[in-house]
Amino acid sequence: MSAVCLVNGFAGAGLDPQDRGLLYGDGVFRTLRVSGGRPCLWEEQLDRFAADAARLGLDFPEASLWRGDLAQLAANLAGGVLKLLLTRGGGQRGYRPPETPKPCRMLIYDPAPPQSDAWPMAGLNLRLCELRLGAQPLLAGVKHLNRLENVLARAEWNDPAIHEGLLRDEAGRVISGVMSNVLFWREGHLCTPRLDRCGVAGVTRARLMRRAAAAGYPVRESEFGLDEVLAADEVMVCNSVIGLHRVARLGERTWPVPAASTRLRALLDA
Amino acid sequence: MSAVCLVNGFAGAGLDPQDRGLLYGDGVFRTLRVSGGRPCLWEEQLDRFAADAARLGLDFPEASLWRGDLAQLAANLAGGVLKLLLTRGGGQRGYRPPETPKPCRMLIYDPAPPQSDAWPMAGLNLRLCELRLGAQPLLAGVKHLNRLENVLARAEWNDPAIHEGLLRDEAGRVISGVMSNVLFWREGHLCTPRLDRCGVAGVTRARLMRRAAAAGYPVRESEFGLDEVLAADEVMVCNSVIGLHRVARLGERTWPVPAASTRLRALLDA
Repeated sequence: MSAVCLVNGFAGAGLDPQDRGLLYGDGVFRTLRVSGGRPCLWEEQLDRFAADAARLGLDFPEASLWRGDLAQLAANLAGGVLKLLLTRGGGQRGYRPPETPKPCRMLIYDPAPPQSDAWPMAGLNLRLCELRLGAQPLLAGVKHLNRLENVLARAEWNDPAIHEGLLRDEAGRVISGVMSNVLFWREGHLCTPRLDRCGVAGVTRARLMRRAAAAGYPVRESEFGLDEVLAADEVMVCNSVIGLHRVARLGERTWPVPAASTRLRALLDA
Repeated sequence: MSAVCLVNGFAGAGLDPQDRGLLYGDGVFRTLRVSGGRPCLWEEQLDRFAADAARLGLDFPEASLWRGDLAQLAANLAGGVLKLLLTRGGGQRGYRPPETPKPCRMLIYDPAPPQSDAWPMAGLNLRLCELRLGAQPLLAGVKHLNRLENVLARAEWNDPAIHEGLLRDEAGRVISGVMSNVLFWREGHLCTPRLDRCGVAGVTRARLMRRAAAAGYPVRESEFGLDEVLAADEVMVCNSVIGLHRVARLGERTWPVPAASTRLRALLDA
């Protein structure tokens, strides 16, 4: 079965080529895992989605509309990946947002399991990317549709033995994976880069930070150089589709045994 | 008459919601003025379009395909604005560019004259924008579909008496207008910011630099602070739709009389 798309609730509809989502990337999205016929972390995702939309000044459709779309897919929904998109829709020409925008909402459901399901439990092989993320505090943390940096970073390697790339900013601070958030464990602390200048703040990262703190582990959200990540007891990447994975290798550095990932994954799944 | 859209040569077709142009802004575009039934600077625009596509590793459709699209519109083409878009098309899930991409080409022709046709010949009123452009050398100069910074900058003002906004980078260097390139005249030199860290290198700017140099005016493409722009004898903005306009006011600073814009406009139109 191929992917199913709904555009403003209509299956098989195409997108208006004048939609600002295409013309400017003027919109936001979420990517969710579907398991046992249900999208995972639906409420948390929708909350975060609405918060991101607000950052762009986008009116967010009522939750009942998204639930209605989901109900349309229900008969097909098994496992796979669900993508929700919201754009500022069409409107007059030019960058200026229309005064009375008609946002466009889209769902894309792909029943194929993610490639990450075949990733080794022993840990991932990470590449240190050449591309440095640009800084834009007004967009930092938001999962918006301007993702060319991620595309260019992912195009840096073809080797299927490399699972993910690590991204730094211009100053050399570690920010995230190409498609994931990065966390590391050091001396009993869960550490993760601050995302106030670039990067995307994922729901799984937020959940993990919250649950780790609740379980009594100190959580440090700060600026970290590559040296600090390399000195970690264990490095992990996460997102809502892949879940939480430990890193076994980053360039020459290897982490042969888990330090905290087993406990943290249990917290996440609890 | 409303806008006419062609998607891969087909009128009235919608865009695949899984197109990477929407999902990631993975594509490039040009905006052209149409005058007397003909798109202006067609060859220069197509050359620049192909060069931008190459920067993203996109296969560029043969010129005959674009010309064929244009021929389809010919009966309608009078004046207005023509937009050409090229995306990396659909493909497998995720940021990784597909190995055998099927690029999607689009034309959007809007017969409405641009608002800038009503702008005062005496000069424009510019706002100094709050937003600072982020730096990404890999994308700098390219007219790609990741334009959220422009959208956010344009949303800074509603006052119809303000025609354009001036954008700086994080270090305070002047880069461009929100939708235009910026040039200024000082002591017989034509100056314009370098666009190797951010900004879009427009065809009209390139043409003006070329022709000014050929006419014997020294052209300086360099880094400029706001103080240097404020100290200019005359400031101008240009793009392919608005042409070349002088600036009459930027915040408190005014430039009541032209210094070079009349000569430069003549060079551009020659």
